[in-house]
Amino acid sequence: MNIIVQKYGGSSVADSEKIKQIAKKIKEKIKENNKLIIVVSAMGKTTDNLLKLSREISKKPNLRELDMLLTTGEQISASLLSIALNEIKIKAKSLNAYQAGIYTNNEYNHAKIEKFDTKNILNHLENYQVLVITGFQGINQNGDLTTLGRGGSDTSAVALASSLNAKCEIYSDYPGIYTIDPKLYPNAKKIKKVNYDEMLEMSRLGSKVLHYRSVEIAKKYKTIIYCGATFSEEEGSYIMPGIEDSVVTGLSVDRGQTQVNIINLPINYSLINEIFKITTEKSFNVDMISIINANDKINVSFSIVENDKADMDEFLKTHLKEFKDVKLSYRYNLTKISVVGVGMRSSKGVAMRFFKSLDKIPITLVTTSEIKISALIDETNLSKAIKNIAEEFSL
Amino acid sequence: MNIIVQKYGGSSVADSEKIKQIAKKIKEKIKENNKLIIVVSAMGKTTDNLLKLSREISKKPNLRELDMLLTTGEQISASLLSIALNEIKIKAKSLNAYQAGIYTNNEYNHAKIEKFDTKNILNHLENYQVLVITGFQGINQNGDLTTLGRGGSDTSAVALASSLNAKCEIYSDYPGIYTIDPKLYPNAKKIKKVNYDEMLEMSRLGSKVLHYRSVEIAKKYKTIIYCGATFSEEEGSYIMPGIEDSVVTGLSVDRGQTQVNIINLPINYSLINEIFKITTEKSFNVDMISIINANDKINVSFSIVENDKADMDEFLKTHLKEFKDVKLSYRYNLTKISVVGVGMRSSKGVAMRFFKSLDKIPITLVTTSEIKISALIDETNLSKAIKNIAEEFSL
Repeated sequence: MNIIVQKYGGSSVADSEKIKQIAKKIKEKIKENNKLIIVVSAMGKTTDNLLKLSREISKKPNLRELDMLLTTGEQISASLLSIALNEIKIKAKSLNAYQAGIYTNNEYNHAKIEKFDTKNILNHLENYQVLVITGFQGINQNGDLTTLGRGGSDTSAVALASSLNAKCEIYSDYPGIYTIDPKLYPNAKKIKKVNYDEMLEMSRLGSKVLHYRSVEIAKKYKTIIYCGATFSEEEGSYIMPGIEDSVVTGLSVDRGQTQVNIINLPINYSLINEIFKITTEKSFNVDMISIINANDKINVSFSIVENDKADMDEFLKTHLKEFKDVKLSYRYNLTKISVVGVGMRSSKGVAMRFFKSLDKIPITLVTTSEIKISALIDETNLSKAIKNIAEEFSL
Repeated sequence: MNIIVQKYGGSSVADSEKIKQIAKKIKEKIKENNKLIIVVSAMGKTTDNLLKLSREISKKPNLRELDMLLTTGEQISASLLSIALNEIKIKAKSLNAYQAGIYTNNEYNHAKIEKFDTKNILNHLENYQVLVITGFQGINQNGDLTTLGRGGSDTSAVALASSLNAKCEIYSDYPGIYTIDPKLYPNAKKIKKVNYDEMLEMSRLGSKVLHYRSVEIAKKYKTIIYCGATFSEEEGSYIMPGIEDSVVTGLSVDRGQTQVNIINLPINYSLINEIFKITTEKSFNVDMISIINANDKINVSFSIVENDKADMDEFLKTHLKEFKDVKLSYRYNLTKISVVGVGMRSSKGVAMRFFKSLDKIPITLVTTSEIKISALIDETNLSKAIKNIAEEFSL
């Protein structure tokens, strides 16, 4: 039995016409003697609309109940797709988290899949040509519904493919993975093959193609992921092991950053560790961090997302009020620009070429990893920076 | 533990404001030291919208998948109401058919509840003040979702109350049960108490207040049902055993009837029985039937709903083509008007008073039962007939 797992995103199942088109596409694939498992997201804006309804009732809705609400979105699209498949004489059955046996931990709103009841799914595949499974959700050990976080249907599909040792195809509006988001740089090249580590850095850095956790799982099980456009025959991109043919694979952009500077802290590392410990506990998204020890004082600088800045200011003012010399300052409207590539590990001079291509653009913060360099720059310089880096690394 | 089961219909949970209002109403009821089980319908037009989506994809959607689709409506309203209750510090939990343990037979789209997992529900009630349960649905022995048919949430509530030996309160837009639909006759009186048998006749005859099956269950378990308006303090109506204080309790109206006349059939009862057997198998809604044996021939007359008339004509023409003398004729735009009352059993002259009050209005078909008299009249005479009957029986 040759099993293929396909995942269709929300815009691919946005209305009844698109659902019928996908059903036809699936029918073609079955002709090649395959059994298909289709993982679907909620239709179009369904999840947003459900969230809006819940916010009209409560600013901080009970998370167990919120997940109970949100999981309906995928049950709607799964059953409609199954209706469309049955209409064109395909033996199809939709399965929700209970029926498919998708077990997660207890973390409502960002649960992790623990296991699939693969025996149950394989049994169903004996009797049906296509199973349509609700993405984005699972059940915990109490039988309560959980959701996997925004974009979690990718993870449902990859986890399922991994546990069945099947191919995984992720379909969306994008015809593949690009070196740079084509909306930012229309000349961006499509990447034919990309390594798991590169994709991890790229999905973490704001490339919206794939849910981060899905790539982690694919890496662990060496599952090959194909990313392509739903309504196009254009060849897409593969995420797979062991490709290292270019130094820099792609460029990612993260807008809406604020830089926080804390000047003249006393040399007291336990104080600094305490600050980052608490910011993490309070779920601030602290990202790039730089600590400089100068003149018997310590200066700390880090980036946060724009939305967190008011809360962060209040927290720091309260927490540091006993240190009279300390000065807090903020820089707004910044963008993080990053280049990623496994080839960096073995190739020298990438950082130098990166900084050279940024030329006279002021950089306010820099961080590097083995396969990534990120710089914080002013939003107004973004398009110039993208152009220069793209040309330097032929992206 | 004093348990009350309340059911709220679709218009009562139509938007987030109404859901918040219901949550407040529930909070008041808890103060009286009760535990509440709330059964909800889908919000406003949700079920209609889901049906419309499915029909865009298939004219005859796979029924198993259709039920999978429709059950999402109640899961949305149940979780939103639970969010609203938690927001005002009520310990509440929503439960879908899996979680509540609502077991039905296999008849997708019009399933019958077989049992509730009452032990599970009582366990949950130990830890929560309110359980919000999805109406209209259950699961069959394969774990597939089923629905109970239009208005099935009434049945969910009554069945649950019956199995827990609890009070049952049904809330809707109507402040109770009336002798006649107030839209047809604004002077109609509200009925304080009504007997199960009368209510069965009334709900079967087109009174939209309660799902037929829910009254059957209430009768079997002697469960008292209170019907009232959601957003009003006005005292509603009780459905309960053993009330026989008026001869005629109410008047029901069923529009859109067509009368079928088959003249000059041979005297062959097995042929006639065959006709009614097949029409039932084909799901025609054959209702009032009159058979008259005259002059060595039989004349049969019966009423059907308007929508069935084209199919019925085709069926009869095919089935009776060998009988050359037989003549088929139809009368359109008829209305069935009925009076119901347990008191009829012991009170003579009701039929006479009924026909007298219809005065000069032509009646084309009549049927009677122990507690009901129905007449088929022309739609144009309806308002006059209602007025006359209402005055005659003080409705």
